[in-house]
Amino acid sequence: MTVFFKINSSLIFILLISASTLRAQKVDFSNDTTTVEAIYQYTLTNGKCYDWLDYLCNKIGARLSGTPAYLAAAEYTRQVLDTIGLDSAWLQPVTVPHWERGEKEIARVVNSSRGSYDLRVLALGSSVATGEKGIQAEIIEILSNEQLQQLGQKGVKGKIVFFNRPMERGIVRTMSAYGRAVDQRYSMPTEAAKLGSIGAIVRSMTTKIDTFPHTGGTQYLPAGPNIPAFAVCTKDAENLSDLLKSGPVSVYMRSTSKMLSDKPSYNVIGEIKGSEFPDEIIIIGGHLDSWDIGQGAHDDGTGCVQSMQVLHTLQSMGYKPKRTIRCVLFSNEENGLRGGTEYAAQAKSKGEIHIAALESDSGGFTPRGFNFEGHPDIFVEKFKKTAAFVDILAPYGLSFNPGGSGADISPLKEQKTLLIGFQPDLHRYFDYHHTEADVFSAVNQRELEMGAASMTALIFLIDKYGL
Amino acid sequence: MTVFFKINSSLIFILLISASTLRAQKVDFSNDTTTVEAIYQYTLTNGKCYDWLDYLCNKIGARLSGTPAYLAAAEYTRQVLDTIGLDSAWLQPVTVPHWERGEKEIARVVNSSRGSYDLRVLALGSSVATGEKGIQAEIIEILSNEQLQQLGQKGVKGKIVFFNRPMERGIVRTMSAYGRAVDQRYSMPTEAAKLGSIGAIVRSMTTKIDTFPHTGGTQYLPAGPNIPAFAVCTKDAENLSDLLKSGPVSVYMRSTSKMLSDKPSYNVIGEIKGSEFPDEIIIIGGHLDSWDIGQGAHDDGTGCVQSMQVLHTLQSMGYKPKRTIRCVLFSNEENGLRGGTEYAAQAKSKGEIHIAALESDSGGFTPRGFNFEGHPDIFVEKFKKTAAFVDILAPYGLSFNPGGSGADISPLKEQKTLLIGFQPDLHRYFDYHHTEADVFSAVNQRELEMGAASMTALIFLIDKYGL
Repeated sequence: MTVFFKINSSLIFILLISASTLRAQKVDFSNDTTTVEAIYQYTLTNGKCYDWLDYLCNKIGARLSGTPAYLAAAEYTRQVLDTIGLDSAWLQPVTVPHWERGEKEIARVVNSSRGSYDLRVLALGSSVATGEKGIQAEIIEILSNEQLQQLGQKGVKGKIVFFNRPMERGIVRTMSAYGRAVDQRYSMPTEAAKLGSIGAIVRSMTTKIDTFPHTGGTQYLPAGPNIPAFAVCTKDAENLSDLLKSGPVSVYMRSTSKMLSDKPSYNVIGEIKGSEFPDEIIIIGGHLDSWDIGQGAHDDGTGCVQSMQVLHTLQSMGYKPKRTIRCVLFSNEENGLRGGTEYAAQAKSKGEIHIAALESDSGGFTPRGFNFEGHPDIFVEKFKKTAAFVDILAPYGLSFNPGGSGADISPLKEQKTLLIGFQPDLHRYFDYHHTEADVFSAVNQRELEMGAASMTALIFLIDKYGL
Repeated sequence: MTVFFKINSSLIFILLISASTLRAQKVDFSNDTTTVEAIYQYTLTNGKCYDWLDYLCNKIGARLSGTPAYLAAAEYTRQVLDTIGLDSAWLQPVTVPHWERGEKEIARVVNSSRGSYDLRVLALGSSVATGEKGIQAEIIEILSNEQLQQLGQKGVKGKIVFFNRPMERGIVRTMSAYGRAVDQRYSMPTEAAKLGSIGAIVRSMTTKIDTFPHTGGTQYLPAGPNIPAFAVCTKDAENLSDLLKSGPVSVYMRSTSKMLSDKPSYNVIGEIKGSEFPDEIIIIGGHLDSWDIGQGAHDDGTGCVQSMQVLHTLQSMGYKPKRTIRCVLFSNEENGLRGGTEYAAQAKSKGEIHIAALESDSGGFTPRGFNFEGHPDIFVEKFKKTAAFVDILAPYGLSFNPGGSGADISPLKEQKTLLIGFQPDLHRYFDYHHTEADVFSAVNQRELEMGAASMTALIFLIDKYGL
C-alpha cells in the first residue's frame, strides 16, 4: 500500500514539475495575454531578484558613490549579469564625487528650559562640516521660503535655521507631499546661507512621526556660501518646535563631513542583442548607489534587481527580443547623477538610438502602473502607442499616466527616448526613504516580484511592437 | 527680531491650523469630488483608527469567540462608538461556540532517518483532541482529494494524512491561490476520517516558506467522524515531504483541544440615524473575533476600526446622512458565523431594510477597490447604479468588480441587500493570516487610513444617491 502510494505520489510530483516546466518553456509569444500571464507566473515562481537583493543588502549593504562598497556592488551585479545567459555584460567607467560623513554628527539643544539634550540627526549628503569645534547659535523655526526671505539678513544672520514645515499627511500621493516639502532639504539651507545663517536643521521628509532621521542630498554651491545642514527626526522636530514656544533656544552642531576627490566608478550593463532591429535599444534600470546608512533596499536595490530580473525572465522563458534590451545599473544618482549623465553622453557619441528607457526608483512595492514623459517632438505619438498596451496590463492593477520617470534616464530626453517611470504603491516609501530602516527585511518578496513582472511585461510589449 | 519672528511664526501656525479646521468643517457636500478629497484628507490627518487598533491589539490581543478577551473587545469598541457622537451604540446578544486549544499541541516525527524532532504546528480551530496520550502512526503525503479517494480506505486507514499541496506562488491573485488550496484545511481532514485516517497534518496556507504555522477553521461534523487536525509551517512541510522520499515515517500527535459549551457574546453596533430615509439602512463592518494566536490585527481588527472610522469621519466632518448608517462588528466569524447569522435574523424579524452592506475582512492594506454581489433580483440594477461612482473613486486607485463580499454580511443576501467587499492589496495578507505574526506592527498606518477613507467615500456616495 505504501509502495503503491509512493509511486503514485512521485508520479504526480513529476507530472506537476513537468507541466510547470513545459508551461514556462512553451509560451506562445504571439499571444500577448498568455505571454503576460506566463511572465507573472514565471517571476513569482522562479524569480531570483529577491535573492540578489538579499546579497546586495546583507552582504554588501550601504554603497555610497566613491566607496569600496559601491565597487563591490558593481562587481557583484556584473557577475550576476555575466552568468544569466545574456549576450554581454560590462562596466561603463564614470567618475563620481566622493562625500564622506566623517565622525558621528552632533546636534545638541543647550541650556534650554528642558536642559541640554541631543537631537537625532544625520548630516545631509554634500553638507559641509562645522569644523572640529562645532558651532553654537540661537535656532529659529521657519516654515517657508517666503518667511525666510521676510526675515531677511537681519533675522537670520549668525543663527541656525530650523526648517520645520511637515511633509503633509493629508495628501493622498506621498510623492506630491514630498515634492511640496523637499525644497527645505535641497535648496533652503543655501538660501539661508546667503542671508548669513551659519547652520541648518531640516525636519525629515516623512509623514510619520518617527525617531530616526531621513537624510538626502542638499545643494552644494561650488562658489558658496554653504552651511552645515542636518536632517532631524520628526519626533525631535515636533519637540523642538514645542520648546521654541517657551523662549529662545540655542543649538550646538558638529560634523566632520567632507567632500573628497572624485573617484573612478562604473555603470553596470547587461544586454540581449535584438534579433531584427539590434540598433533600436530599450533600457531598464535603477541606481546602484545608495546613501551611507541602512542598506539601500528600496532606494534603489529593488530597482536594480528588478531590472536584472527583466532580462533574466525574458531569457529563461526563451524569448528572443527583436530589439536590443539592456539593463543599466547607474552610479551616483543620490549625489551627482554622474552615472546617468555619462550613460547618455556615451549613447549620444556612439550614435545609439534609445527608443525607450524604463527606470524603477520608487521602491519595491506592489506595482500600480507607469509614468511616461519625453521630448515634445515624440511624446504624444509614443505615449499613445504605448498606452494601447494598457488593456493587457490593467488586469494586473496597472495604469498608464503622463508623469515623471526617473532621474538617471532623464538625460536621454534630448535624444527623444520615451522615458518611463515604474510606479509602485507609495504609501510605505517614506517610512524607509534615506534612513537606517531601508533594509532588506522592509521589502516583501511578492511585491518585489510583482513589480519585476510588470516591468518585464511592458518591455516585452514595447520590444514586440516597437515605438 | 526674535520677537518679530516669534509672533510671525505663531501667526502662521494659527492660520495653518484654522485653515485646516475650516476646511474640515466647511465641506461642500454637494460637490462629490471635493467631498471625497476632503474625506481622504480628514482621515489621513485626523483618523483615529490606528490608535483604536493599537488598543485592540496591544491592550486586548487575540480574542477568540467565547473568551473573556472577546468580551473586553466588545466593551472597548462599544465604549468608543458611544463617545464619538453617534445617535446610539449597543450590544446585540448572540450565542457563540467556544473552542479551546488546550495545552501546546505536539507533532513529532519519530524514529526517522533524521531521528526524532518536533514539527511546528497549531491545532486547527474546531479540531478534536488526540486524547491525553496522543496518537502515533505512519504519515502519508497526499496532494489532492482525487489522490485521497484513489488511496481509499485501504491506503488511509489507521494512518495520519499529510495534505501538502502548496498554495501556488505563481497565481497573481493570492485569494485565488488560497481558494485552490484551502479544501485541504477545511474539508479534507473529515474526508480522510471517513476513510479511517486517525489524524491530519495540513500544510499552512501561505505562498511563503516560513517557520510558523497558519491555523484556521476545519470542518467539524456533529455526527462525526472527526480527527485531530493540525497546520504545519511550510518549512517543516517541505522537509517532511523530502524525508518521506527516503522511506516510511511515523508521527506522534498530541492535542488536548476541546469544544466547550456555547457562551454569550455580542455584535457591537453604532448608528447615525438617517435624516430623510431613516428606514433605509446601510451597514459597514468587520468581525471582532480573531483566532487565539497573534493579535488579530489584519484579521480583522483593521476591518473593525476602519468601519468605526467611517462613522467617525462622517460625523466629524459634519455630514448628516440621509439614510441610517450603522457600523456592525460581528462576533464569531472565524468559527461559526453566529454573529452574522444572528444580525441578519434580527434584521429580518424586525422588518428592517438593508440597502447595502460593506464588509472589510481582507486586511488593512492599500485599497484597490470593491467587490459586489447580491440576490439575482437586484444585483445587475444596483451594481450598475453603484458602478457609476467609479469615476469619482478611480483617481484613488479603486476599481469596482463583481465578486465575493464578506462572510458576515452574506446572510443578508436573501434580504436583497447589495453586498460589498472592500478589496485591499493582498500580496502580504497570507504572510500574516491566522498566525502569530498578525500583530499591530504588521499594519501600516497610512495604508489602514487609506482603506478607511475609501470605505467612507463609497458609503457617502451610496447614502447621498441611494440605491
